[in-house]
Amino acid sequence: MVDKTNKTGAPPGTLVYFGDKQTDRVKLSLIEFNETDFIEKEFYDLSECLDHVDTKMVRWINVDGIHNVELIEAIGKRFGIHSLTLEDIVNTNQRPKFEDYDNYVVAIMKMLYFDNELQSEQLSVVLFDGMVVSFQEAHGGDAFDLIRNRIRLGKGRVRRMGADYLAYALIDAVVDCYFGILEKIGDRIEILEEDLIEEPTKETMRQLHNMKREMIFLRKAVWPMRELINNMERSETELIKPTTDIYLRDVHDHTIRVIDTVETYRDLLSGMMDIYLSSVSNKMNEVMKVLTIITTIFVPVTFIAGVYGMNFEFMPEIHSKWGHVWGYAFAWVIMLAMMISMVVYFKRKKWL
Amino acid sequence: MVDKTNKTGAPPGTLVYFGDKQTDRVKLSLIEFNETDFIEKEFYDLSECLDHVDTKMVRWINVDGIHNVELIEAIGKRFGIHSLTLEDIVNTNQRPKFEDYDNYVVAIMKMLYFDNELQSEQLSVVLFDGMVVSFQEAHGGDAFDLIRNRIRLGKGRVRRMGADYLAYALIDAVVDCYFGILEKIGDRIEILEEDLIEEPTKETMRQLHNMKREMIFLRKAVWPMRELINNMERSETELIKPTTDIYLRDVHDHTIRVIDTVETYRDLLSGMMDIYLSSVSNKMNEVMKVLTIITTIFVPVTFIAGVYGMNFEFMPEIHSKWGHVWGYAFAWVIMLAMMISMVVYFKRKKWL
Amino acid sequence: MVDKTNKTGAPPGTLVYFGDKQTDRVKLSLIEFNETDFIEKEFYDLSECLDHVDTKMVRWINVDGIHNVELIEAIGKRFGIHSLTLEDIVNTNQRPKFEDYDNYVVAIMKMLYFDNELQSEQLSVVLFDGMVVSFQEAHGGDAFDLIRNRIRLGKGRVRRMGADYLAYALIDAVVDCYFGILEKIGDRIEILEEDLIEEPTKETMRQLHNMKREMIFLRKAVWPMRELINNMERSETELIKPTTDIYLRDVHDHTIRVIDTVETYRDLLSGMMDIYLSSVSNKMNEVMKVLTIITTIFVPVTFIAGVYGMNFEFMPEIHSKWGHVWGYAFAWVIMLAMMISMVVYFKRKKWL
Amino acid sequence: MVDKTNKTGAPPGTLVYFGDKQTDRVKLSLIEFNETDFIEKEFYDLSECLDHVDTKMVRWINVDGIHNVELIEAIGKRFGIHSLTLEDIVNTNQRPKFEDYDNYVVAIMKMLYFDNELQSEQLSVVLFDGMVVSFQEAHGGDAFDLIRNRIRLGKGRVRRMGADYLAYALIDAVVDCYFGILEKIGDRIEILEEDLIEEPTKETMRQLHNMKREMIFLRKAVWPMRELINNMERSETELIKPTTDIYLRDVHDHTIRVIDTVETYRDLLSGMMDIYLSSVSNKMNEVMKVLTIITTIFVPVTFIAGVYGMNFEFMPEIHSKWGHVWGYAFAWVIMLAMMISMVVYFKRKKWL
Amino acid sequence: MVDKTNKTGAPPGTLVYFGDKQTDRVKLSLIEFNETDFIEKEFYDLSECLDHVDTKMVRWINVDGIHNVELIEAIGKRFGIHSLTLEDIVNTNQRPKFEDYDNYVVAIMKMLYFDNELQSEQLSVVLFDGMVVSFQEAHGGDAFDLIRNRIRLGKGRVRRMGADYLAYALIDAVVDCYFGILEKIGDRIEILEEDLIEEPTKETMRQLHNMKREMIFLRKAVWPMRELINNMERSETELIKPTTDIYLRDVHDHTIRVIDTVETYRDLLSGMMDIYLSSVSNKMNEVMKVLTIITTIFVPVTFIAGVYGMNFEFMPEIHSKWGHVWGYAFAWVIMLAMMISMVVYFKRKKWL
Repeated sequence: MVDKTNKTGAPPGTLVYFGDKQTDRVKLSLIEFNETDFIEKEFYDLSECLDHVDTKMVRWINVDGIHNVELIEAIGKRFGIHSLTLEDIVNTNQRPKFEDYDNYVVAIMKMLYFDNELQSEQLSVVLFDGMVVSFQEAHGGDAFDLIRNRIRLGKGRVRRMGADYLAYALIDAVVDCYFGILEKIGDRIEILEEDLIEEPTKETMRQLHNMKREMIFLRKAVWPMRELINNMERSETELIKPTTDIYLRDVHDHTIRVIDTVETYRDLLSGMMDIYLSSVSNKMNEVMKVLTIITTIFVPVTFIAGVYGMNFEFMPEIHSKWGHVWGYAFAWVIMLAMMISMVVYFKRKKWL
Repeated sequence: MVDKTNKTGAPPGTLVYFGDKQTDRVKLSLIEFNETDFIEKEFYDLSECLDHVDTKMVRWINVDGIHNVELIEAIGKRFGIHSLTLEDIVNTNQRPKFEDYDNYVVAIMKMLYFDNELQSEQLSVVLFDGMVVSFQEAHGGDAFDLIRNRIRLGKGRVRRMGADYLAYALIDAVVDCYFGILEKIGDRIEILEEDLIEEPTKETMRQLHNMKREMIFLRKAVWPMRELINNMERSETELIKPTTDIYLRDVHDHTIRVIDTVETYRDLLSGMMDIYLSSVSNKMNEVMKVLTIITTIFVPVTFIAGVYGMNFEFMPEIHSKWGHVWGYAFAWVIMLAMMISMVVYFKRKKWL
Repeated sequence: MVDKTNKTGAPPGTLVYFGDKQTDRVKLSLIEFNETDFIEKEFYDLSECLDHVDTKMVRWINVDGIHNVELIEAIGKRFGIHSLTLEDIVNTNQRPKFEDYDNYVVAIMKMLYFDNELQSEQLSVVLFDGMVVSFQEAHGGDAFDLIRNRIRLGKGRVRRMGADYLAYALIDAVVDCYFGILEKIGDRIEILEEDLIEEPTKETMRQLHNMKREMIFLRKAVWPMRELINNMERSETELIKPTTDIYLRDVHDHTIRVIDTVETYRDLLSGMMDIYLSSVSNKMNEVMKVLTIITTIFVPVTFIAGVYGMNFEFMPEIHSKWGHVWGYAFAWVIMLAMMISMVVYFKRKKWL
Repeated sequence: MVDKTNKTGAPPGTLVYFGDKQTDRVKLSLIEFNETDFIEKEFYDLSECLDHVDTKMVRWINVDGIHNVELIEAIGKRFGIHSLTLEDIVNTNQRPKFEDYDNYVVAIMKMLYFDNELQSEQLSVVLFDGMVVSFQEAHGGDAFDLIRNRIRLGKGRVRRMGADYLAYALIDAVVDCYFGILEKIGDRIEILEEDLIEEPTKETMRQLHNMKREMIFLRKAVWPMRELINNMERSETELIKPTTDIYLRDVHDHTIRVIDTVETYRDLLSGMMDIYLSSVSNKMNEVMKVLTIITTIFVPVTFIAGVYGMNFEFMPEIHSKWGHVWGYAFAWVIMLAMMISMVVYFKRKKWL
Repeated sequence: MVDKTNKTGAPPGTLVYFGDKQTDRVKLSLIEFNETDFIEKEFYDLSECLDHVDTKMVRWINVDGIHNVELIEAIGKRFGIHSLTLEDIVNTNQRPKFEDYDNYVVAIMKMLYFDNELQSEQLSVVLFDGMVVSFQEAHGGDAFDLIRNRIRLGKGRVRRMGADYLAYALIDAVVDCYFGILEKIGDRIEILEEDLIEEPTKETMRQLHNMKREMIFLRKAVWPMRELINNMERSETELIKPTTDIYLRDVHDHTIRVIDTVETYRDLLSGMMDIYLSSVSNKMNEVMKVLTIITTIFVPVTFIAGVYGMNFEFMPEIHSKWGHVWGYAFAWVIMLAMMISMVVYFKRKKWL
């Protein structure tokens, strides 16, 4: 939740990794393709990987782990990536953004997973002329697997078009995953809404609060995506060809749809919180009303009983002849009459 | 309510239909007209339909059902519609938008129905040179019937003007239907407001909550319309002629009026929710006050009765000669005096 | 409150009147003037009116009633007013707006009256070269009387300047009337504020709610005026001469002042609603506290009375010799001591 | 608080004074200076004043009172001030604004005083070529005295620079006075905040409400200042020389600082209101809890006393031999045990 | 918290220091460097310092204390700093801003420290051609130490690049320190959140209120930084070379990240305040419910006891033979049955 450990005072462009998983070796997976051919290899060593690169094909190097700062630096030096960009790539607290440099453009994004709670993984896509280098946190999940499959099978446009379309496809995959998360959250909102109507409990409220928190963080990840795509569309780089523009417009549209839905969910959750609070308060009030009514019914008749418990030496209801016989019954009649009339009155006023 | 089933990972431009009604055959209705002539036919087959098209007239092909993905793809191929556009047309979760391509422009909108609850149907209007192709969900209702009638009868400008005016007329019909919905909602708000003043119940609150929810979804459908019309007005396409601009300005205006009314209703509903909560709380407080006052009146006199129920061997009010005769009456006088003075006090303080 | 009866599906440019008053004949009042001369006539027939028009003077035709759709259409045909403009003029639900056409510009506004509740009347001002045609609902009130008088008396600039200044003067009259309404509302807010401090009742709250509602509708009428004047200032029409621009700047300024005041009143009313709710809740709490304190004082002493009402055969306070004489007094001492100490304690804690 | 008496319907450019103080004669104070010389005179007559004007020096005429409408009109005619400007100068409800005309520019501002409550005075500064004419309400206070002194003493830049710098200095004096007011309000907020923590009373709340109201009005006066300075900076008038631009940037900055502080205070006051309401509610709840606990402790033991007050002929605790001796003590033991265990239970639960 | 002591009425450009620490001598530390050489010296005298300046190297003069107004004025005169800039440098209430003058540009910022409460120190960085002069409050802390070290050690780019990069590095250091503060605040929010779930107390609420206040002030310091960097990027000054632009873009990005986090924390704190209030209210309601239930259970049975304490001469339950033997037991059975059935009822209704 909180941006942990920032490298205050370190010179700009210093690579510092902030994530948790630090032990594994970093895997480099190289995919090279054109409309007819397709090569896929995996390496654990940069120079070995670079030996296999064929500059006539579209190349995609995926770096599966960003904790190996030396490797990232080596990649940066080899491909001419600015040190500020490298810093952004390894800083997992980075805000999603798009930047264009002379020889490349870079998009840094948050891939989100929703598995009981929202988790985020940083993804960076660097687009060179004819090459895409993507960086993801170790064990980063399968967000790109679908695109890899499409390339392998030659399905869709990706094999026919250039590196810029590949970069677009990767970004599109990230935005698409947001829809999946929104769907899961939407389902949970519907379940919560039913709980709310049937039997709101403390647990409902805790879940509402958690959902609200998750919407705050989802929003923080999603809003900058709009700007990212905007900047990408408006960028004057020649790396992105006009034929890809139409696809960017499409992903831009999806981003706005995601944002719209996030805002709608926030509105819904606020409304549900209000409903919860008012229904809890109503329920409590109902309980207190019933309890108070019971007390209210018995207090006056207790008074009557108290009156005939007084020890005065002559009380006509008790000590007269009539009282001797009917007194007790008379007292009960009065007391029952009082109780019944109160119940009737409360019923009529719809208090019971 | 929730955007269901998104096709995460499918290559962009893949047509996937998300709606429910999947069984029926798709009807293609072709209307061809110019100022003097008018032809109307219905087909269940694309090529048959295309055989009847007369390129000298203004043509309107309405596709009544978007679940037949193959047909949509065939139409797209035949008329040169980009696969991203086709994807948007069949994706019923699409956000309203306007886009211009080289050979056509497309407006995707939400037609709304209010029949106890808000329901939406996706409508897409594709404008080519001299031709309009519109797509609607199966059994999509009669939104376009009025325009069809106007063409049949030669009423209004639609027969005299070109395809761009026809496209405008279709969009105008969608915006017009929002007014009908707002009117129905407005009526329900007025009824609710009267309920609120006379006798607010739990049902009132449930309805208020539902109305608020509906306003959230109405808003989500209506706000993008403004942008849609804006983009349409600012578009540099030559498909929309300057003579139609003045009509776009008019529908733009209507859209803003719809948005204004939606915002006004939201404000009204918020105010009503506050009124409801405060009136429920006041009512409950009134009940508790009356109950507490009853208890408060009887507790002190019960104490007095308790005092004269004590068993002390000499209590002057009881055991003196005077007490023997007047004691009981004296006790009643005191007790009644206490009760009456409390009632008077509470009345004066306006607590009763 | 609610936009009633919309003509869903009617072809654009169809004139449909939505107001209530339909019976009266429509009066056309023609005023012609230049710096030296002045002619004023009234007609119930358009062609008769047009016969009297002298194109060398500035002409002002005021149409007093817009329910006669045929007349409006005739006027429109005669002066070349676009059917969309005519539709806006007779549609009393129209949002205030300014539009420029080739041969005329039109401003549609809401005149407001505040007579216990807010009422609105639609006013339209169409400016041609050398002529102003204004439309108002029948019995529309005297908003323009003051300008008519100024023309009659030759007071102010209106006689010296052209038709564009006359149009400005009419718009200025509408904005000026908002100040009068704000003043009345301001007075009522002050009265309400005093009520709130002295003796808030349910009626106060009902009035607060009504005022809030009226502010919502006032706002809906006033906000578009800003845009109207803005569009008028930025319009490139040649009908409005540069000498009038300075006056538009002034009315623009007034509009912003009106909007500022409306927003200030909304803030004030929100604050007052909060004060009301908290003061009602405090008052209720005070009542409950006093009632509860009374009960709390008597319950313990009732217990003491109960103790000495027990029938044990030997209770020293009762059956001993000392008890025989002092027991009753002793019980009273204890009970009074308890009551007094509780009262003192509550007083010290400032609960009483 | 409320915009009083507006001149609905009067022709634009009519001078109507709305303030209260109407009796005094209007003083004209003339200051003429250049880098070396300095002349200061006071007049009660315009023509006399104009006789003394020396066009080679920078002239500053301060009009001390704007209720004498004839004088203002005479000044306007003499210096060529547009009647709309004159109208704004005497209309004390005017919104702060800047306007440029051909021969002069005018800034209308609100000087604020905070003396238990916020009071405002209208100040207008008209800048001509080489001359400043300023208008203030009668007895308008000493806002300009400091600048007068600086001119007299030849301190600061004001003597060296032209009329535009003088106009800037007057505007700067107005913005500076806002800081003084914010400081006073800040002090009161700090005092209120301490009251809130120590002992919140009804008075605290009344003061909070007043402060909130004052912030609403302060905001209404301060926000337009930003626009005023902005328009002044962007104005293309030649009356303001480029050397003065740097000073305008400075006063622009001050204005934003004032606005920031106003917004911060509003946030603080909102937070304090919430704290107040929750602390009042908590205090009340505490009182009710204590009262209810007292009742709750005595009700069960009263029941026990009631049991042994029953008149059954054989109750073992009473009529047995053991009961004869120990019964009473036994009853007390039970009752005390109940009371003590309840107190212990409530203490443990931290309810006491 | 409150902007103290403003110099109302003093001529613009007058230097007035508003801070507290006034006693110490002001230290001037001079650092001169180029890619190969590095000189560092400290002075307490301006002219002595200026004697040591070598115009062929990049010079950085850090003024450690701004209370010595004469010194600041001397520096300003020597380097040609405008008096308005000097005024801003010594005015510790200054809002963060960037301004460009002919011969220099200046950035005024707030360095923040979080040590139980938020404290701010003003930092000003003036960039000349080849020279940076920075001003900080006395004992201003070590914000710049890290940069000094980097220069000393020749680490990072700073030695290789010019004065503009040095100025950037100083600004970057300020923004970086905000991350440290946000991290500390984030930790405290997490602790508070746990407190809130486990055991919310009055202290929790006081801390929440304090955190909210601190966020208000943090926001006030951070928001203008965005504008500052924006203006710096858009500035047309030649003092900032294009090679530095890329670093400004980076710090711009960091600023937006800081602002995002501040807004997220505000949202979180608001949510926590709501949770706190609702949980306190729930806890109180639970207590009241239990107390009321106890009373409600004993009031009816006390009535039964009262009935059998009545003194009627013939009550069958007492005076009959059966009553003589079983009466007392019968009374207990009834009373226990009543109590048990009530407990069971309340349990079933989940009120207990």
